[in-house]
Amino acid sequence: MFDKLHEECGVFGIFGHPEAANLTYLGLYALQHRGQESCGIVSSDGIQLKAHLGMGLVADVFKHDDIFTKLPGSSAIGHVRYSTAGGNDMKNCQPIMVDYSRGSIAVAHNGNLVNAPEVRSALEKSGSIFSTTADTETIVHLIARAKSESLVERVCESLQQVKGAYSLAFLTETRLIAVRDPSGFRPLSLAKLDGAFVVASESCAFDLIEAEYIREIEPGEMIVIDKKGMKSYFPFKEKVRNTPCIFEYIYFARPDSRIFNRMVYPVRKEFGRQLARKYPVDADLVIAVPDSGMPAAMGFAEEAGLPFELGLIRNHYVGRTFIEPQQSIRHFGVKLKLNPVREILEGKRVVVVDDSIVRGTTSRKIVKMIRNAGAKEVHVRISSPPTSYPCFYGIDTPSRKELISASHSIDEIARYITADTLCYLDIAGLHAALRQFGDHKVDFCDACFSGEYPIRFPRLTDTNQLGLF
Amino acid sequence: MFDKLHEECGVFGIFGHPEAANLTYLGLYALQHRGQESCGIVSSDGIQLKAHLGMGLVADVFKHDDIFTKLPGSSAIGHVRYSTAGGNDMKNCQPIMVDYSRGSIAVAHNGNLVNAPEVRSALEKSGSIFSTTADTETIVHLIARAKSESLVERVCESLQQVKGAYSLAFLTETRLIAVRDPSGFRPLSLAKLDGAFVVASESCAFDLIEAEYIREIEPGEMIVIDKKGMKSYFPFKEKVRNTPCIFEYIYFARPDSRIFNRMVYPVRKEFGRQLARKYPVDADLVIAVPDSGMPAAMGFAEEAGLPFELGLIRNHYVGRTFIEPQQSIRHFGVKLKLNPVREILEGKRVVVVDDSIVRGTTSRKIVKMIRNAGAKEVHVRISSPPTSYPCFYGIDTPSRKELISASHSIDEIARYITADTLCYLDIAGLHAALRQFGDHKVDFCDACFSGEYPIRFPRLTDTNQLGLF
Amino acid sequence: MFDKLHEECGVFGIFGHPEAANLTYLGLYALQHRGQESCGIVSSDGIQLKAHLGMGLVADVFKHDDIFTKLPGSSAIGHVRYSTAGGNDMKNCQPIMVDYSRGSIAVAHNGNLVNAPEVRSALEKSGSIFSTTADTETIVHLIARAKSESLVERVCESLQQVKGAYSLAFLTETRLIAVRDPSGFRPLSLAKLDGAFVVASESCAFDLIEAEYIREIEPGEMIVIDKKGMKSYFPFKEKVRNTPCIFEYIYFARPDSRIFNRMVYPVRKEFGRQLARKYPVDADLVIAVPDSGMPAAMGFAEEAGLPFELGLIRNHYVGRTFIEPQQSIRHFGVKLKLNPVREILEGKRVVVVDDSIVRGTTSRKIVKMIRNAGAKEVHVRISSPPTSYPCFYGIDTPSRKELISASHSIDEIARYITADTLCYLDIAGLHAALRQFGDHKVDFCDACFSGEYPIRFPRLTDTNQLGLF
Amino acid sequence: MFDKLHEECGVFGIFGHPEAANLTYLGLYALQHRGQESCGIVSSDGIQLKAHLGMGLVADVFKHDDIFTKLPGSSAIGHVRYSTAGGNDMKNCQPIMVDYSRGSIAVAHNGNLVNAPEVRSALEKSGSIFSTTADTETIVHLIARAKSESLVERVCESLQQVKGAYSLAFLTETRLIAVRDPSGFRPLSLAKLDGAFVVASESCAFDLIEAEYIREIEPGEMIVIDKKGMKSYFPFKEKVRNTPCIFEYIYFARPDSRIFNRMVYPVRKEFGRQLARKYPVDADLVIAVPDSGMPAAMGFAEEAGLPFELGLIRNHYVGRTFIEPQQSIRHFGVKLKLNPVREILEGKRVVVVDDSIVRGTTSRKIVKMIRNAGAKEVHVRISSPPTSYPCFYGIDTPSRKELISASHSIDEIARYITADTLCYLDIAGLHAALRQFGDHKVDFCDACFSGEYPIRFPRLTDTNQLGLF
Repeated sequence: MFDKLHEECGVFGIFGHPEAANLTYLGLYALQHRGQESCGIVSSDGIQLKAHLGMGLVADVFKHDDIFTKLPGSSAIGHVRYSTAGGNDMKNCQPIMVDYSRGSIAVAHNGNLVNAPEVRSALEKSGSIFSTTADTETIVHLIARAKSESLVERVCESLQQVKGAYSLAFLTETRLIAVRDPSGFRPLSLAKLDGAFVVASESCAFDLIEAEYIREIEPGEMIVIDKKGMKSYFPFKEKVRNTPCIFEYIYFARPDSRIFNRMVYPVRKEFGRQLARKYPVDADLVIAVPDSGMPAAMGFAEEAGLPFELGLIRNHYVGRTFIEPQQSIRHFGVKLKLNPVREILEGKRVVVVDDSIVRGTTSRKIVKMIRNAGAKEVHVRISSPPTSYPCFYGIDTPSRKELISASHSIDEIARYITADTLCYLDIAGLHAALRQFGDHKVDFCDACFSGEYPIRFPRLTDTNQLGLF
Repeated sequence: MFDKLHEECGVFGIFGHPEAANLTYLGLYALQHRGQESCGIVSSDGIQLKAHLGMGLVADVFKHDDIFTKLPGSSAIGHVRYSTAGGNDMKNCQPIMVDYSRGSIAVAHNGNLVNAPEVRSALEKSGSIFSTTADTETIVHLIARAKSESLVERVCESLQQVKGAYSLAFLTETRLIAVRDPSGFRPLSLAKLDGAFVVASESCAFDLIEAEYIREIEPGEMIVIDKKGMKSYFPFKEKVRNTPCIFEYIYFARPDSRIFNRMVYPVRKEFGRQLARKYPVDADLVIAVPDSGMPAAMGFAEEAGLPFELGLIRNHYVGRTFIEPQQSIRHFGVKLKLNPVREILEGKRVVVVDDSIVRGTTSRKIVKMIRNAGAKEVHVRISSPPTSYPCFYGIDTPSRKELISASHSIDEIARYITADTLCYLDIAGLHAALRQFGDHKVDFCDACFSGEYPIRFPRLTDTNQLGLF
Repeated sequence: MFDKLHEECGVFGIFGHPEAANLTYLGLYALQHRGQESCGIVSSDGIQLKAHLGMGLVADVFKHDDIFTKLPGSSAIGHVRYSTAGGNDMKNCQPIMVDYSRGSIAVAHNGNLVNAPEVRSALEKSGSIFSTTADTETIVHLIARAKSESLVERVCESLQQVKGAYSLAFLTETRLIAVRDPSGFRPLSLAKLDGAFVVASESCAFDLIEAEYIREIEPGEMIVIDKKGMKSYFPFKEKVRNTPCIFEYIYFARPDSRIFNRMVYPVRKEFGRQLARKYPVDADLVIAVPDSGMPAAMGFAEEAGLPFELGLIRNHYVGRTFIEPQQSIRHFGVKLKLNPVREILEGKRVVVVDDSIVRGTTSRKIVKMIRNAGAKEVHVRISSPPTSYPCFYGIDTPSRKELISASHSIDEIARYITADTLCYLDIAGLHAALRQFGDHKVDFCDACFSGEYPIRFPRLTDTNQLGLF
Repeated sequence: MFDKLHEECGVFGIFGHPEAANLTYLGLYALQHRGQESCGIVSSDGIQLKAHLGMGLVADVFKHDDIFTKLPGSSAIGHVRYSTAGGNDMKNCQPIMVDYSRGSIAVAHNGNLVNAPEVRSALEKSGSIFSTTADTETIVHLIARAKSESLVERVCESLQQVKGAYSLAFLTETRLIAVRDPSGFRPLSLAKLDGAFVVASESCAFDLIEAEYIREIEPGEMIVIDKKGMKSYFPFKEKVRNTPCIFEYIYFARPDSRIFNRMVYPVRKEFGRQLARKYPVDADLVIAVPDSGMPAAMGFAEEAGLPFELGLIRNHYVGRTFIEPQQSIRHFGVKLKLNPVREILEGKRVVVVDDSIVRGTTSRKIVKMIRNAGAKEVHVRISSPPTSYPCFYGIDTPSRKELISASHSIDEIARYITADTLCYLDIAGLHAALRQFGDHKVDFCDACFSGEYPIRFPRLTDTNQLGLF
């Protein structure tokens, strides 16, 4: 309903706990913001894998106690998924679970493989069949066809053939393997709970189950957990730049999460401060587009010395379906979720802070809503640069045509959304903010803003169709 | 899941619009915070009434388009309901719709009749049967048995026999009647949309459908709307004090609503300022228990000159059911909804602002959560006085035994919730804040804090059981 | 889907058994053929009544164990209902349960009160309100307004004011009352199970729970069961003819039931014999329209000395919904349920026996189906007279216009359904068959065939609209 | 609920009709008796395949019109499935649909491959992964890995590697292929409808959609249908005996179906005649265990010159779930479905005819039920031999331990089920009956009676575990 990019997935895994499946359910609960279309859990009792998957929210797919009696064992992995257009069916639910020559294996994937079509095509040519449209399935095929003897080597051998973004959790009868791609696009961290090892896309999943955060799994690192304990490998020979996704800090991750060794909330607030410093405005108050714009708006207000107010109130009971009046020319969309507070806005010069603009349609409605509530001026400040390029590393971006920044100048966008002024934080500002909270030397992937893709993709024709070149 | 008092109902009505039922659905959507257990709509096409009612949220009960084709006509009333214990079944859904000697009538009620048991008993003695356990049914019986000829007089005659709190919307084949009790306990306002009249418990319902707010319906006022237009009556002879519910400002109403002629948000923020002035504390930052504690926390922070931070992050995907791990000694309750941000809280002296404490169990968990996230000191500030007395005017209060303030001193509560300090805004502070935003002379009902009930109730024995005397 | 008249209800009650609600569920299971739209159970634990009602089949409304924990106590009544057009909503589910001056009372009703509109109107004039459109609600109002002191007298007083058909089961906190109207239109029998008393519309309900059949409750008899045991009353002074519904034997009752002191199956078979004797035909074999036409077809075949074959096979997996192909000119209706066996029918002169024809549309399709399967001749024999008059005693009959026999001669109907010959068993034949199995002196109500209504109804205008006079 | 063997699947396909998916739905409706656990349809619009699958009955999985808009195109295949223990989950629903090097392919399978484990193991060794536990998946893998160029050759190449029972329907973007294994275990027939070709497991599916039956697809025949028309191939070089499943005639197929070139109903009736001739009994009447025992019972009665009666009445409203009373020692099982008619049975010597006995538990209850209804003698006649051996060709048989005939003599079984006499039709009788209606030279597979398996299976160890040797 909001005009946002969508994370495609969240991943969770636990090894060595008697309530593995139930804790995985809780972990997915905490990761629900990373994907709402489908979810699933695969557990192992040491002898075989069992799965339960379904379309919908975690609370709906796992709403009966007895599901957990069908997911026995002390290890489990889970997945939440945001389905891209056309792929929202049962078949594409994860974790994917298959049998192959060495037994069973399940995998949960956050990310996107840029060479999946080529690998798939090659696999099909040598006789593989594909049950899903997910790129993740290629990984399992590669493992099944690997020549090495040990599972660890087979996984390594396979991952060396794929390119792109992946934070993966594998489960076999007796092992849990967690890997991040060498570039480290997507987050994945490690924790401990009562002696059990836990992995999750974001640390907020550890908080809920009261697991103790240990550390980020490193880019290119493979963690193998079995009865004997945990081992760490760095199987990728080739050196690549470490380019975690900068957008996780801007919008995807929960503000109470730690990812890539930084807490999200203070970073987000610092984006707001940077924005206030670079694009100050003579105004009466600052409001946020809730809830994602809140930290940046608060940072902006503090830096600008302006009062921060709750000028837009969010309705927490918005359902998945909504029936528009038949003969109405009004469209309810954003009004169902947000309502302006006239008393605060009336007669005021208002700064409204949001984290990003994708198509611009929602921003336009919000600006109008604020103005209808009596605001004298509306100054829009966005805590990230214009989103002009699609993501190929695991984020569901609309085609380039739909990205308003791809074809319009900031002035044009300002006019379209009817803002008095519109300013975006630039890439330098993002990096400056991030440097305050962690390692100075880490690069981030900012391809959605800059078009500079850390990993090139083989299919020029396809990407051309996306209007990229 | 949160430790709050619960509003029992929200009311909506519209007369003279071709999409009456669909707009009522939208109105109920906006009023959903006033009741989530059941909802319903009754519409009239001028000849007969049609109803659709069900258990659950508005978005679930009205999830198919074709429901609206079964609710034809240009007038409708609707209701959302929070069920009190034991009464959460289909039979008690509202609007109540019955046939009587003059045709059909439906009624939606927000409030509670203190003499309902006596009236019901008297009606039963003279041969009436009751299909529901709701006090509202007595009103319809009284109308059916009234001696006057005209509908308006019958409604007046009936209401003169009941005592207590009521904001009512009646619908007959050809008329919509809206009434507030003479004390004016519950809110009800009037608006216009494309020539149609609209009534709703809170103005946020008008905002969503873009109806223009006209005014509060006055205490003791009866509005009658038919084809010829609107008429206003003041049928109650006896003069009573105007005592709107002060708790609507503290917690029930949405912050973006106007009720009792004041906007909620600035009042709530002023409660925080008053609190900061009366109970200052040497601290590093102020956080809120989201979302209801936000405005007061912001007011507190501004007045105290302390930074306001989002120290507790809310999970927006909490479902209605939740499966606790079997062998776990942990209880997830509030952790599912809130997660602290360690970076903000660690090593800090934290002021946490909430609007009220009912049983104290949640507050205790929140204080512990904040302390576990590293806070050095936790100072709890509550933007209302201790809730020590049950409400008999339409709010679902636990029995007196469960109200922690009824049997414990503030010091004892502070120890129980493990706060370093705990302060409540006093009644004078509430009134002082309210005087800044509206009529100085209006009394408010503050019985839940003071035990001073504006309307006495006949059944001493019952109320004794509640531990009141 | 089939062209049949519909029974409106089935009734069950039990008093004095620890598993009262669960046995009631089983009883309703066995009575499901008497009504499929809604069902419900009310139980009493001696102190209060509890109810569970819902739309749909017994197996669907009561599909979770925990429903029975909410229906405690050792007495219960239950109801299955076939909803007439327009009335199929939740509100009209039975048993109806209300509170009145003496406590609570619930009632389950099979039948129809011919003076319900007058009684309702009178009750409304004196101030009663009606929550349902069911005639049954008038009975509860009358009980609530009765002047006698004891429950038994109140029920008697009330029933003396209503006219028509009723087999009723009442439940209060401490008593079960079962009554049949003085004419005895609808069946109701008594049984015992482990010391508990049981009442049910048909004896098949006793068979399932292994209760021992005692006897039919007599027309005009009222059975009162409480802790002390059972008492029988005959409260109706006026003598009326005993006129049980003859159609129960023709179609409504299950063939394995005993009603009105006769087993259904042999009666139904004798109808077929009578038919064969009166309307013999030179043919090769006899088939039935399954399943209701089976016994009569077998009786016909035996009497005629012709082979009986299963020429039409029934599909047992027919669901409640069915999606017709979009562009198709075919209509699937009866084909979904029945398929002819070509090998049996090809080249043969076939007698097809059915129990009744209502609109004729299905018979027409069946005759065509048999002919398409190769039959040389199709002779239709109906084991009851032409259904020419609507029922006012508890059966859902279409309006007179829709009854093909009301406006067409047998010859015309034969041509319409494309039968070579068509013969109906006459009223004398029905009575002759019934006399073989029970009391010779009992009259039966055959108004649907003869138009001779045992009880006249006050509303001439209404009945005129039905095209009756 | 009844003690029967279960068919595992039904198959349907259509090519060249604008309403392909909807007609497939109708076909599956008619084949529902062959599998009730799950069902599915895959359609092709000439460019791509679309699928809809689900757990449950056809009427439930396809209950909304809009499902068919998502299954466009003029060709489709469908499947109904009875899940064997452990395999009843979503993943095993058919048709299986995959992508491989030549595009997409879907397959619906009735039967069982005896060498599936070996083939699967070999495929896994060369790197294949398996998403389901179904033997059918091996076929798709083999097609994907086949070396031939054309689809037809690839399918042939693949089928030459599997052994066992299969009637298959394949769908690709542009072709429908139907095949029967060389032994012809499972039925599959061909029909035409408005120029479109149709295939189905039983002819009753053709009857419903009014398609014209053409012929049985022959054992070892492969039919390929595309835009240009239909071609027939016989790709299997090796000559094998034609051994269709005799149990299809005894119980599985619908009596109104034609399979293996014979109509089922007259065959079944002739089984009854044979039984009467070989095992006559001095009795008063013959009854059937409905509905499957009906034709044989009627044949028995005719041959024996005894009256045939409906002594057991079936309840047609039995749901999928049923809640037993808690404290009850009674078990309801078969009583929910069947009720005896006392009037018919009382004091009589009764012959009760059923088609087969698997575990004997239900037969025991039925004999007791008949005796409790007053029968003086109960003579059980079974229209097939003792079922002593498991089926490996597509029928879900219990393990050998559970088959009462595997370990008990007929006398012992008679005592267990408390019958006065018990007789089974012998294998010679079955064959004699079948010869009357079709080709004298066809062998039938009667392995479940004789233990003579037409195709041996490689895994001796496994079959040993089944207690076979």
